[in-house]
Amino acid sequence: MRTSRLEAFSDGVLAIIITIMVLELEIPHEPTWSGLAESATGFLTYALSFVYVGIYWSNHHHMFQVVEQISGAVLWANLHLLFWLSLLPFTTAWMDETSFEQTPTIVYGLNLLLAAIAYYGLQLTIFAGPGGERLRTALGVDLKGRLSPVIYLVGIALSFLASWPAVAAFVTAALVWLVPDRRVERFLRDERDLA
Amino acid sequence: MRTSRLEAFSDGVLAIIITIMVLELEIPHEPTWSGLAESATGFLTYALSFVYVGIYWSNHHHMFQVVEQISGAVLWANLHLLFWLSLLPFTTAWMDETSFEQTPTIVYGLNLLLAAIAYYGLQLTIFAGPGGERLRTALGVDLKGRLSPVIYLVGIALSFLASWPAVAAFVTAALVWLVPDRRVERFLRDERDLA
Amino acid sequence: MRTSRLEAFSDGVLAIIITIMVLELEIPHEPTWSGLAESATGFLTYALSFVYVGIYWSNHHHMFQVVEQISGAVLWANLHLLFWLSLLPFTTAWMDETSFEQTPTIVYGLNLLLAAIAYYGLQLTIFAGPGGERLRTALGVDLKGRLSPVIYLVGIALSFLASWPAVAAFVTAALVWLVPDRRVERFLRDERDLA
Amino acid sequence: MRTSRLEAFSDGVLAIIITIMVLELEIPHEPTWSGLAESATGFLTYALSFVYVGIYWSNHHHMFQVVEQISGAVLWANLHLLFWLSLLPFTTAWMDETSFEQTPTIVYGLNLLLAAIAYYGLQLTIFAGPGGERLRTALGVDLKGRLSPVIYLVGIALSFLASWPAVAAFVTAALVWLVPDRRVERFLRDERDLA
Repeated sequence: MRTSRLEAFSDGVLAIIITIMVLELEIPHEPTWSGLAESATGFLTYALSFVYVGIYWSNHHHMFQVVEQISGAVLWANLHLLFWLSLLPFTTAWMDETSFEQTPTIVYGLNLLLAAIAYYGLQLTIFAGPGGERLRTALGVDLKGRLSPVIYLVGIALSFLASWPAVAAFVTAALVWLVPDRRVERFLRDERDLA
Repeated sequence: MRTSRLEAFSDGVLAIIITIMVLELEIPHEPTWSGLAESATGFLTYALSFVYVGIYWSNHHHMFQVVEQISGAVLWANLHLLFWLSLLPFTTAWMDETSFEQTPTIVYGLNLLLAAIAYYGLQLTIFAGPGGERLRTALGVDLKGRLSPVIYLVGIALSFLASWPAVAAFVTAALVWLVPDRRVERFLRDERDLA
Repeated sequence: MRTSRLEAFSDGVLAIIITIMVLELEIPHEPTWSGLAESATGFLTYALSFVYVGIYWSNHHHMFQVVEQISGAVLWANLHLLFWLSLLPFTTAWMDETSFEQTPTIVYGLNLLLAAIAYYGLQLTIFAGPGGERLRTALGVDLKGRLSPVIYLVGIALSFLASWPAVAAFVTAALVWLVPDRRVERFLRDERDLA
Repeated sequence: MRTSRLEAFSDGVLAIIITIMVLELEIPHEPTWSGLAESATGFLTYALSFVYVGIYWSNHHHMFQVVEQISGAVLWANLHLLFWLSLLPFTTAWMDETSFEQTPTIVYGLNLLLAAIAYYGLQLTIFAGPGGERLRTALGVDLKGRLSPVIYLVGIALSFLASWPAVAAFVTAALVWLVPDRRVERFLRDERDLA
């Protein structure tokens, strides 16, 4: 099966998730700077979730550059990942509307954790399929992929004390991914050089 | 006519349907676990409709791998399918908001049934067109395609007794499709082997 | 300039327009058939606008199969068309919520008229550009394209008497387009046969 | 890395931004022309933001026709641009709902300014990467790109006096971009002629 249509569909879903979150941003009631300031947390959580969806899109994009054929199992592992990401507008809005109350913050962390697990599951499914060895070699020891769930768990644990350290953990895990990751690019270049 | 733009448009519509359903999920009023629990049925119906749209996307994807040319009739049969699927966010939200009252549950089942009939109509339209014979051979006896409408009808009938068995029927019909279906893949491989 | 990205962007916008209209459909207040019946006009106007966006997508698709190069002017003429189509969810919702009051019905007709004029402007812009002669030959005397605005004007005029004949006119104009139109297909086949 | 998927994702996000703004347009409360007139400013700001997103799409499209390879930095500079553009539905709705109060008008101008800066940052990032020299040659002295932020700043300054001159400035900056810009087309033609 060709990867192009799976990529196009995933791009579509991720583009919509990243964009409809703005519909959950509440328009300030007062036409003033202090009115806008009340929306400030909404703006920050919007930016955080925007960056997360951007990270997943970027990683997804890199991963499927190495994949050449997809099976039905990969297709469903991919939908599983999209499912958890599609809940981000919901968990983001809840955390924001309650101004980072404990439960919504935990739920947001759980959403990030479940998306990370789904992403890991997608990787394993590709590893097990035809050509999976190639991706495994390209990714090597996936340090970041292993670190992220740990940070989310730390964040969830911290949220039992207070919400801000939890949010700080979620921001940290995002920053880790912003550091450029050249594994796939290097792998493709090496492969080309060998050929 | 090329199939690529029809596929791209269908992917776009399905990606939007699958994603905007999250906008119908009501944000819990209380920032507590019991507040979230009240949204639990919404979450389950969201997951169910998400899986259904995923199934249609996957089947659509498989079907059009075998189709090479499309006529105007196929184009409208495809829009007919997208029409019924586009109503899923509406019927899902209604069933959820009323906590599975009888009428909304029947209407949800009817929506699934009408989408299944539209999908069957799309198949027949492709069969009748140029190259249709090829898809007919690839699909063989479409057991699942024939079974699903029966399960929906059983579900609709059950909803006159109670809503939960009806929902169980709708879940069952989805599970049937999750079992991997390798007809198209096998057909394309056999064809390649013969060439 | 390549047409592929203009087609992809237009497909995206049309896919979103056709799908988000469902968000304007009001969930019935009562979980009963009579509650659903109150949403019935909403359902009908939704179906009508769905068909219209489908018609524009189909015509757009056909037209750009014959176009090979696009200029900046075509790009803006295309955005002009998308602008009027993007207002359909708004005018549809207004007409529906007021149960076909006179002014909203006229405004819906005007929206259809302005979209038709924008489509005609897009055709003229392509005619004037490189390779435009080819599209002009393929389309021939565009009877339907000339008839539709007349029907919209008749519908708008009728709405000063009552809304239902106006809506009937809008439905008629849609039905005219559902009759298959093989000009582009025939043109491309003839061209291929000549080569 | 291929540019095609970055273009497809950006097209998706821009298509959604340009279309969901219509969801923020309030349906008039009265089914009359004066009811519609109350929505008139909403309509105008909608048209303005529609044109701006159209301009960014058109410029983005032109720019990436000259770019052949993208690095991770370009990917994030592109997401940065999409982030500011994705806030346009929010700032547009606020400015409209408050009927052009001073603060929301300033915020709208800031949004335009930040998007322009992000676009400039995206250009610089591409210039610095592989093949960047080619885009630099194609764009030449980017007069419009330099002029726009100045006009936005003038608009923001004017909004301290009154809102209408500020909006007039934002409209002017849009009109500057509607004048066709043939740099990229000319560059690609010249290059082809040389080859």
